[in-house]
Amino acid sequence: MERYRFLLSGSGGQGVITMAILLAETASIQEGLMSVQSQSYGPEARGGATRSDVIVADTPILFPKVTQPNILVALTNEAAAKYLPLIRPGGLLLYDSELVQPGERIDAQRIGLPMYRATREKLGRTVAFNICVLGALVSLTEIVRLPSVRKTLEKNFVPAHHEANKTALGLGVELAKPHSWDRY
Amino acid sequence: MERYRFLLSGSGGQGVITMAILLAETASIQEGLMSVQSQSYGPEARGGATRSDVIVADTPILFPKVTQPNILVALTNEAAAKYLPLIRPGGLLLYDSELVQPGERIDAQRIGLPMYRATREKLGRTVAFNICVLGALVSLTEIVRLPSVRKTLEKNFVPAHHEANKTALGLGVELAKPHSWDRY
Repeated sequence: MERYRFLLSGSGGQGVITMAILLAETASIQEGLMSVQSQSYGPEARGGATRSDVIVADTPILFPKVTQPNILVALTNEAAAKYLPLIRPGGLLLYDSELVQPGERIDAQRIGLPMYRATREKLGRTVAFNICVLGALVSLTEIVRLPSVRKTLEKNFVPAHHEANKTALGLGVELAKPHSWDRY
Repeated sequence: MERYRFLLSGSGGQGVITMAILLAETASIQEGLMSVQSQSYGPEARGGATRSDVIVADTPILFPKVTQPNILVALTNEAAAKYLPLIRPGGLLLYDSELVQPGERIDAQRIGLPMYRATREKLGRTVAFNICVLGALVSLTEIVRLPSVRKTLEKNFVPAHHEANKTALGLGVELAKPHSWDRY
């Protein structure tokens, strides 16, 4: 398989790191792939920006940091501006169409979905926003199967959250359905 | 400062990854240091073992994986057996004295504390066990200040958990107090 290099970015409190861990766990524990998930916190972390990297492959991953993502998720304008220049040609930018207005440049495909608004309207709160994004991401990349994601969610959250998570995940999948990632 | 290389290990559900993130966040966001936190999931992750690496430094960290930790935390026998051989001479092994009986070998200092039992007895449940371990770890390494850890905990958990977290953190600090890490 080709190697997937995800750079997930947003602001603190949006659940970016949790989304990264859920993705990495699903790929490896449910799907038998190898994955690495990491965060670097430099001085810029104090500003509230969050970035988490995930690499998924079927062969061992020696260097766990993503220098050039082929999938970038940006949930704030700041994150989009900062990481857009890193994306590989042929890569995918997934962004929230309410929170982010990405700049013009890029050789990458851009897919903006109203994930934040959909989560808020459907669930009455935005706490599962990251799970909605995860649903869209999985749907667009097809890197893991949806039932595997559901298993990971059930394993990592207390039962009180299962229903909202399932709903949010499904929302993301639905929003992404009309779109597809035209790779390279 | 010297570079701190933590390898935190245990089984799924013990909160090892959360502990790693809290440590890395405290070091960087509260203390202005640089830190990197990562997980690799290989085929062995399916067995339920969990490992998370944290590096803390005052200069940029280029390679985020820990090959030889100077601080190893082991919360299961399996984890202790697997990672003990990696520890640097002069390093520290912190383990739970109820859950782990570490093997004989090593040039490292070994400190076993009844963190699991103390958490269970004091809080009536073990959900904050990882926070107790974090308290002991911070106390022994003095890498960050306790008020900084408390701030990170308040930022990352809903208010309903604040009291139990504070108690568990204090428990770990108390348990570690009679001990000190004699470095090198």
